[in-house]
Amino acid sequence: MVPRYSRPAMTAIWSAENRYKIWWAIEVFAAEAMGKIGMIPPQDAATIRKAYDADVLGEVDVPAIDAIEAVTKHDVIAFLTWAGEKLGPERRWLHQGMTSSDVLDTSLAVQLKQSADLLIEDLEALLEVLKRRAYEHKLTPTIGRSHGIHAEPVTFGLKLAQAYAEFDRNRARLKAARDDIATCAISGAVGTFANIDPAVEEHVAKELGLTPEPTSTQVIPRDRHAMFFATLGVIASSIERLAVEIRHLQRTEVLEVEEYFSPGQKGSSAMPHKRNPVLTENLTGLARMVRSAVVPAMENVALWHERDISHSSVERFIGPDACITLDFALARLTGVVDKLLVYPDRMQKNLDRMGGLVHSQRVLLALTQAGLSREDSYALVQRNAMKVWDSDGQLSLLDLLKDDPDVTSKLSDVQLEELFDLGYHLKQVDTIFQRVFGA
Amino acid sequence: MVPRYSRPAMTAIWSAENRYKIWWAIEVFAAEAMGKIGMIPPQDAATIRKAYDADVLGEVDVPAIDAIEAVTKHDVIAFLTWAGEKLGPERRWLHQGMTSSDVLDTSLAVQLKQSADLLIEDLEALLEVLKRRAYEHKLTPTIGRSHGIHAEPVTFGLKLAQAYAEFDRNRARLKAARDDIATCAISGAVGTFANIDPAVEEHVAKELGLTPEPTSTQVIPRDRHAMFFATLGVIASSIERLAVEIRHLQRTEVLEVEEYFSPGQKGSSAMPHKRNPVLTENLTGLARMVRSAVVPAMENVALWHERDISHSSVERFIGPDACITLDFALARLTGVVDKLLVYPDRMQKNLDRMGGLVHSQRVLLALTQAGLSREDSYALVQRNAMKVWDSDGQLSLLDLLKDDPDVTSKLSDVQLEELFDLGYHLKQVDTIFQRVFGA
Amino acid sequence: MVPRYSRPAMTAIWSAENRYKIWWAIEVFAAEAMGKIGMIPPQDAATIRKAYDADVLGEVDVPAIDAIEAVTKHDVIAFLTWAGEKLGPERRWLHQGMTSSDVLDTSLAVQLKQSADLLIEDLEALLEVLKRRAYEHKLTPTIGRSHGIHAEPVTFGLKLAQAYAEFDRNRARLKAARDDIATCAISGAVGTFANIDPAVEEHVAKELGLTPEPTSTQVIPRDRHAMFFATLGVIASSIERLAVEIRHLQRTEVLEVEEYFSPGQKGSSAMPHKRNPVLTENLTGLARMVRSAVVPAMENVALWHERDISHSSVERFIGPDACITLDFALARLTGVVDKLLVYPDRMQKNLDRMGGLVHSQRVLLALTQAGLSREDSYALVQRNAMKVWDSDGQLSLLDLLKDDPDVTSKLSDVQLEELFDLGYHLKQVDTIFQRVFGA
Amino acid sequence: MVPRYSRPAMTAIWSAENRYKIWWAIEVFAAEAMGKIGMIPPQDAATIRKAYDADVLGEVDVPAIDAIEAVTKHDVIAFLTWAGEKLGPERRWLHQGMTSSDVLDTSLAVQLKQSADLLIEDLEALLEVLKRRAYEHKLTPTIGRSHGIHAEPVTFGLKLAQAYAEFDRNRARLKAARDDIATCAISGAVGTFANIDPAVEEHVAKELGLTPEPTSTQVIPRDRHAMFFATLGVIASSIERLAVEIRHLQRTEVLEVEEYFSPGQKGSSAMPHKRNPVLTENLTGLARMVRSAVVPAMENVALWHERDISHSSVERFIGPDACITLDFALARLTGVVDKLLVYPDRMQKNLDRMGGLVHSQRVLLALTQAGLSREDSYALVQRNAMKVWDSDGQLSLLDLLKDDPDVTSKLSDVQLEELFDLGYHLKQVDTIFQRVFGA
Repeated sequence: MVPRYSRPAMTAIWSAENRYKIWWAIEVFAAEAMGKIGMIPPQDAATIRKAYDADVLGEVDVPAIDAIEAVTKHDVIAFLTWAGEKLGPERRWLHQGMTSSDVLDTSLAVQLKQSADLLIEDLEALLEVLKRRAYEHKLTPTIGRSHGIHAEPVTFGLKLAQAYAEFDRNRARLKAARDDIATCAISGAVGTFANIDPAVEEHVAKELGLTPEPTSTQVIPRDRHAMFFATLGVIASSIERLAVEIRHLQRTEVLEVEEYFSPGQKGSSAMPHKRNPVLTENLTGLARMVRSAVVPAMENVALWHERDISHSSVERFIGPDACITLDFALARLTGVVDKLLVYPDRMQKNLDRMGGLVHSQRVLLALTQAGLSREDSYALVQRNAMKVWDSDGQLSLLDLLKDDPDVTSKLSDVQLEELFDLGYHLKQVDTIFQRVFGA
Repeated sequence: MVPRYSRPAMTAIWSAENRYKIWWAIEVFAAEAMGKIGMIPPQDAATIRKAYDADVLGEVDVPAIDAIEAVTKHDVIAFLTWAGEKLGPERRWLHQGMTSSDVLDTSLAVQLKQSADLLIEDLEALLEVLKRRAYEHKLTPTIGRSHGIHAEPVTFGLKLAQAYAEFDRNRARLKAARDDIATCAISGAVGTFANIDPAVEEHVAKELGLTPEPTSTQVIPRDRHAMFFATLGVIASSIERLAVEIRHLQRTEVLEVEEYFSPGQKGSSAMPHKRNPVLTENLTGLARMVRSAVVPAMENVALWHERDISHSSVERFIGPDACITLDFALARLTGVVDKLLVYPDRMQKNLDRMGGLVHSQRVLLALTQAGLSREDSYALVQRNAMKVWDSDGQLSLLDLLKDDPDVTSKLSDVQLEELFDLGYHLKQVDTIFQRVFGA
Repeated sequence: MVPRYSRPAMTAIWSAENRYKIWWAIEVFAAEAMGKIGMIPPQDAATIRKAYDADVLGEVDVPAIDAIEAVTKHDVIAFLTWAGEKLGPERRWLHQGMTSSDVLDTSLAVQLKQSADLLIEDLEALLEVLKRRAYEHKLTPTIGRSHGIHAEPVTFGLKLAQAYAEFDRNRARLKAARDDIATCAISGAVGTFANIDPAVEEHVAKELGLTPEPTSTQVIPRDRHAMFFATLGVIASSIERLAVEIRHLQRTEVLEVEEYFSPGQKGSSAMPHKRNPVLTENLTGLARMVRSAVVPAMENVALWHERDISHSSVERFIGPDACITLDFALARLTGVVDKLLVYPDRMQKNLDRMGGLVHSQRVLLALTQAGLSREDSYALVQRNAMKVWDSDGQLSLLDLLKDDPDVTSKLSDVQLEELFDLGYHLKQVDTIFQRVFGA
Repeated sequence: MVPRYSRPAMTAIWSAENRYKIWWAIEVFAAEAMGKIGMIPPQDAATIRKAYDADVLGEVDVPAIDAIEAVTKHDVIAFLTWAGEKLGPERRWLHQGMTSSDVLDTSLAVQLKQSADLLIEDLEALLEVLKRRAYEHKLTPTIGRSHGIHAEPVTFGLKLAQAYAEFDRNRARLKAARDDIATCAISGAVGTFANIDPAVEEHVAKELGLTPEPTSTQVIPRDRHAMFFATLGVIASSIERLAVEIRHLQRTEVLEVEEYFSPGQKGSSAMPHKRNPVLTENLTGLARMVRSAVVPAMENVALWHERDISHSSVERFIGPDACITLDFALARLTGVVDKLLVYPDRMQKNLDRMGGLVHSQRVLLALTQAGLSREDSYALVQRNAMKVWDSDGQLSLLDLLKDDPDVTSKLSDVQLEELFDLGYHLKQVDTIFQRVFGA
């Protein structure tokens, strides 16, 4: 976790305090369930639950727990030793028949679920901003580019609508990944429930808003976590896509948008005029980092037999790092889109600079419809298009076509002029917005 | 694609022949739709569709198409040139208002959907075998191991049930990934439908069993593909997990299972007695390869502006490689599980070899329930357990406990003996099977 | 391996024929050495060597060997069975005391060494072209860009010199990786030389131009291979860097260079005027693929005990794929650079379009040297620079500065004009070329 | 960075304090050089250098710098503002003609070099321990295993010698990577030295123990960093290999070694007897994390044009994380090997448990040398070996062979007995140790 790429709410989820509080909740809910089925004395279980409701734990004394762990070299025992002191003799019933992993894995599931909830909120904030700005620029014409080369007109709103659709898919994927990860395992030493009744797991799951893990092996199977982090990796890649788009559009030669530039900000210690797309460049790097969690998470799946502990160190890194970084990145991207400076005039200027070449396909199509073979039409358009291209937009394709007898024998001047109408390219924008944003 | 790791049905999906046949279907269905909306002459469209239904294309002459492409350096144009010759002058209407990507991306979607269908069949075959063998060994006791160290008893059927649950999740994930990838884009140059009505896309999608892409940018957005390959990576990791389990169980010192060994097979050119788990070792490597497609697929997401072509070369590799390899791996794993030699006697022998240490937790629990503190119980069990451990299983934990007055002051011999009952550990197997396999 | 991304020489290295020929050489050289030390009858060893020199093997009948392997399920035994028939009864001495891995791993080392040799040639061809074109454009001014934003002038030759320096480093790295990988292991079942004298390994190594592996464990340790493929991944990343540079420079709005465009080539089936940087886009994708070999190669390192076979399937993919793809990519990049269309006029035009902003740092420095604090100088330049920026290059920074009394109180018009001299930025080009290309 | 996986010396290298101190050194050395060449007033330069030597900077006030950065949003300017206050008016000369990247990139090079130095020390400590323990167990026989199956005898010392050789290669690789990364760039805005003489770079490089970067583009090219992190990834993979070996050897059924187990340590909260290889399991996970830095580092290479800033966020993570984690992992591995409990009796017991099957290859060889064809010998050995195998080591291969007339017709009892001599397998241990450890 790099502080400058983190926000408080997500960082809090991954704090030691939050983790211990979740452990406490798990132990208490488990004891409560054990009381209900008579596995431990019901009145002691009730005492424990009451103590929980009265928040006897209070503030978590992390250094104290750390000090105990330094001796026992076992984190759950360390916590139980510390927390047990908040209770009377009923403390003996805590953790009965359970194994550390029951606590650790269920706790991780809660943290990942909390993280997913926050990330879904982030996605929703981003979607809202994307939608607002997409509608704002629904009909702002701009050149569409394939291979970095001018192709045909689109609108800036379409670009944002595409991003909306992509992040909307990501929201659905993240919800699925959240459901995948949100399971509870309280199944004892090797997952057989030998020492603990499945009813305990069911109760704890219900209290925590989780699903009981159908079959655990001391640990919750790591394919769930792999799927979770893989999904974060996909979302990060979508962030990269939009970030790269903005970086391209802010290039000096293009300059159709700019990241908002605050008054006090210095772009370069050497070149005072520079306004660099540093936020989206940063997002490009952060996307790489979130993505880097995917392979280790997949390597974690093949634990040995009923479990080994190799996944744990990996998750101590990627759990917080991937979630915190993605949370930060989504919020940063939302901010960038929200305040993005958009220059429609420049978009129009760029659109015009190729001398009308962007309409070449339409001419090609018209010639074909006028009876020429596709091959002949292609050759005819290309020979004129190449002249415009070579002139760096000084010549006009429309003018050249009007002067080409092979063209004019098929298409009149009026027909040709109609082919250069920008509105032609925007006529389905409504349809697309309808598809993306619904009614 | 490595021939030895491929099977014919999946290889056929990724053959040039299949790809061209899908292209042909797309072009024909698109023309048909154009005819319906009057974009091209309806009778010509009908002629094209009839020719398709009569299979005028016949066998695809791949070398001929390659030869044309060598000149045009454009694959779709090369194909259309070749295929157009099968038609009369109506050929001119083919590909009207479309762009190569309309064909290529929709074609890839069809191939990925076909692949997903086959992989889902593979998963179902694997699930069936896992279920059969899980029930066969539902109550075959075997030692559960955490950290590679004996823990407590499980059954071999439980191990397979866990694998079943994991691959069942993978089936659900793959279905979601299939739906994610199965979209159709016929939206023209930069996805604006300027030259082609959305009705064409809708028709082609319907004919091909796809969903129309809500908004494409000449290409189908690559977050869909990233999600698809990420899902394959998770499945591969689950394969690795089960493969590693079998490799462990076949170790000389463990030898609880063996891969089926055919009579003519030589395990080693040097050591004639060896029977190596080569199939599951191979699966471990194949899992790495499938997983290696994930990062490039994610790097493909951030195409420039409306599209660039950098994804294409990546997909020419990972499309066939990941699908073919995963298909092969799933089938191989199914075969391994199907014919796996299982040695219950050896499982029992291993279970017994630790002098009853596997029951230590139960004793711990009983001592706690008999009134000792958790810490004291732990110390008491540990001091006896360590003697057994140091004897390499020659001493019996039960005997030692019966001789320990601190223990016998809390638990009678009869009570101690009951704590060493294997059935205790298996009592919830039914519950778990119920959870995994349903009624 | 994707045929369209492969070249014959590298493909031949990875052919079954080449592999079998290397196996044959290993077996023969090993037998020869065994004869020398009396491990097998010297005259039989001599007979085998003579047969080798007379090329009794002839053309390798791959299908015949495959057919044998289908029965034995063991590739080396299959080959020995086939090849043995070319010899008389001395065939019995082949493979004495050896294990399959002695052959397979040494053979892979030879193939990787051959591949490295070819890749080094590729790099040298690329370096030569980079050097030629760097000198050609040594003093062709062009704008340097940071963050995609105009910064200060550089030359196009400098860009190529930087690429030269980078690929020169890659050449050195690849030579180191080649030496790392080029070892020979003929050490028997678990690498103890129990059944085979180290002298055999030394002889085979010498004949094949390899180094004896100091200590093998039946297999050559896979950290060597991991290092090799990691190095290929770095080279691929350098390819991506130069490819991305060219793609950027070919953007419509920039258009300072173009990939060579052959007369018959069609850029787009829909838009006849388009000239797309498809080769460098392709290289971007190929770089991702070569890089994807790195992680599996690293995952291969941790083989179990003296060896398992999980690495083998991985290497059957990444051995040929990474080498063939990188060979192709290097050759393609060399061709792109060799024939790259460079437009100095356009470079100058772009350089001028920012109204002289590229000289702002120099003004900043001059003001500081004239006695202003850095902060004041920065503010002074920035307020004028921002006006130019906002005018989209219509205003001239020089003119504005001449009109700013706070500036002119420190710098005269003549001094200001000198600060806008392009030559100032190019004065160290010689030094840099000297550093990169030597005397 | 995860505190529990970090050590103070490496963490200090990556602290803000250390970074600022390096920045300070760079700025001061640069000013000193500028004074020498008259670019700034020599006496002011001398004043700055004297202030440096007198350590006027003192303790770095990180929060103060952070506070300034919160306003300027520019880290180098923030630092210069703070540090400048320690000087008189000569502060104005700091950073003349330089750009932030000159400072940042050179500073990162220093940190990576410091890290490499520490990691090399770590490797040397590990090598020393490996060597000591290798010699200690040079002739401790143990079974060699391929595919997890017993193969032929080796010694435990050989296993450690192999690890030694592997980490010795890693040391050489890391030294090469260190040299690769240890360059200094003080070349100004886009690397042209327009505003700063190359002599400044040369001086700073010399003072810092770096090499001048032949040609930078504001930034030091990232192929260097990619190579560095790739090398760390290889080392991590070697750690994983040895960790996996130890985990295997500590399995309950094998139990040939154990990680040292401190008296107060609890292996499991539930099962008091358990002694788990948690350190090496942890190392397995840490290896995955170090490796996860490789791909992002490679993705960082293709910066746009002269530079973008996307690499920076990646490096803020992987710089400290990969170095700190690898340092911790190497030290942990050194501790594990140093204190590893080795059980030669158990090794012998395992060696014997297969009824002499480990000698089968030697018998095979002897039969061949006695005149049987390889195929017949193989069949003869296999039929006896399989009986032993099926008896789970209760039958003795030697006894069976003595009873097999087809064998005894070729080999006498005495000859057979000689074939079962363990010393035969260890006769080249000296040679191998010689190769690995030298004279």
